[in-house]
Amino acid sequence: MHRVIEIPTTGPGLYGFTDQVVDWVQGDGLLTLFIQHTSASLLIQENADAQVQSDLQAYFTRLVPPASDPKMAYLKHIYEGPDDMPAHIKAAMLPVSLHIPVISGRMCLGTWQGIYLFEHREAPHMRKVVAHLP
Amino acid sequence: MHRVIEIPTTGPGLYGFTDQVVDWVQGDGLLTLFIQHTSASLLIQENADAQVQSDLQAYFTRLVPPASDPKMAYLKHIYEGPDDMPAHIKAAMLPVSLHIPVISGRMCLGTWQGIYLFEHREAPHMRKVVAHLP
Amino acid sequence: MHRVIEIPTTGPGLYGFTDQVVDWVQGDGLLTLFIQHTSASLLIQENADAQVQSDLQAYFTRLVPPASDPKMAYLKHIYEGPDDMPAHIKAAMLPVSLHIPVISGRMCLGTWQGIYLFEHREAPHMRKVVAHLP
Repeated sequence: MHRVIEIPTTGPGLYGFTDQVVDWVQGDGLLTLFIQHTSASLLIQENADAQVQSDLQAYFTRLVPPASDPKMAYLKHIYEGPDDMPAHIKAAMLPVSLHIPVISGRMCLGTWQGIYLFEHREAPHMRKVVAHLP
Repeated sequence: MHRVIEIPTTGPGLYGFTDQVVDWVQGDGLLTLFIQHTSASLLIQENADAQVQSDLQAYFTRLVPPASDPKMAYLKHIYEGPDDMPAHIKAAMLPVSLHIPVISGRMCLGTWQGIYLFEHREAPHMRKVVAHLP
Repeated sequence: MHRVIEIPTTGPGLYGFTDQVVDWVQGDGLLTLFIQHTSASLLIQENADAQVQSDLQAYFTRLVPPASDPKMAYLKHIYEGPDDMPAHIKAAMLPVSLHIPVISGRMCLGTWQGIYLFEHREAPHMRKVVAHLP
């Protein structure tokens, strides 16, 4: 069983899509969510306070500043702008896929865990996530 | 086949639990270990020298200092203390789950690989890890 | 179905091996690639411009400098040289395994996604990656 979930993004930050996954899973097995991009990530994170999401965005922007920052002057892959290579770096540090056991039709997420797409690019994108549950 | 492994923690650092997993796995398949929290992580790391574990703890504390550090003054989600949001950041950077092929009843770990829970919070916690082997 | 892929490395950097995996996968299921080491990583990254690979290497060398850098003077596990503990730190931050859905004999990689081994050590190594497709 598999499908592609499309998630529109409008700039850097976290986009929750737990509900779309909850509605889709069934039976028993290991759910995979796999993002088909190298400039956005997937994340399981705290689902209660939106400030966790903005703090995560604030931290990773500081850890990997745009190429326009003098500290990042060594970056060469900046054809698509100052957010190009930093997006690839963040995509290397953060998950390209999530894998969650499904038991009796329910993901075994903890109480405070939600599923997010973490967009690293400034421009709007339509992101594709493959959901797979064999 | 699934069970919940409970791991008590008493402050930041790595807690090995390879033996508990070795005792549980059988047959063939892909083992999943999934932590049901957003302020602790799972890790496969060097199992021979305890200084690797203390060095990892030392590095990540410097990479993501407590919110009481002036460099982190921009953090907003600090309701549970200066280790609150930094724990979420470390949980974003480090694995929420591990997935290890099991062949003829044995995990295919390398000679120097052990399985750890990486606690990011100061207060004692009882952490839950779902073990799943379909 | 499983096999071990051996990848020789000659210093830090990314080593692509997508083609070896493409040739091996078949049928339907979840492909696992698992590296049996704690001083090298696996990565899915941009496959078109080699500067992405050298920029990734440049970034992570700055984020985790060698133990000879005064900023890293607190590291204790340096028996094998200044690149010893930094390699373990990078191996903690970057994936120990990749998991990619295979549908009708093809991995569901995006257009720009390739599969890499990321070597963190200076000395030449022969790295072992377990490929598993149940």
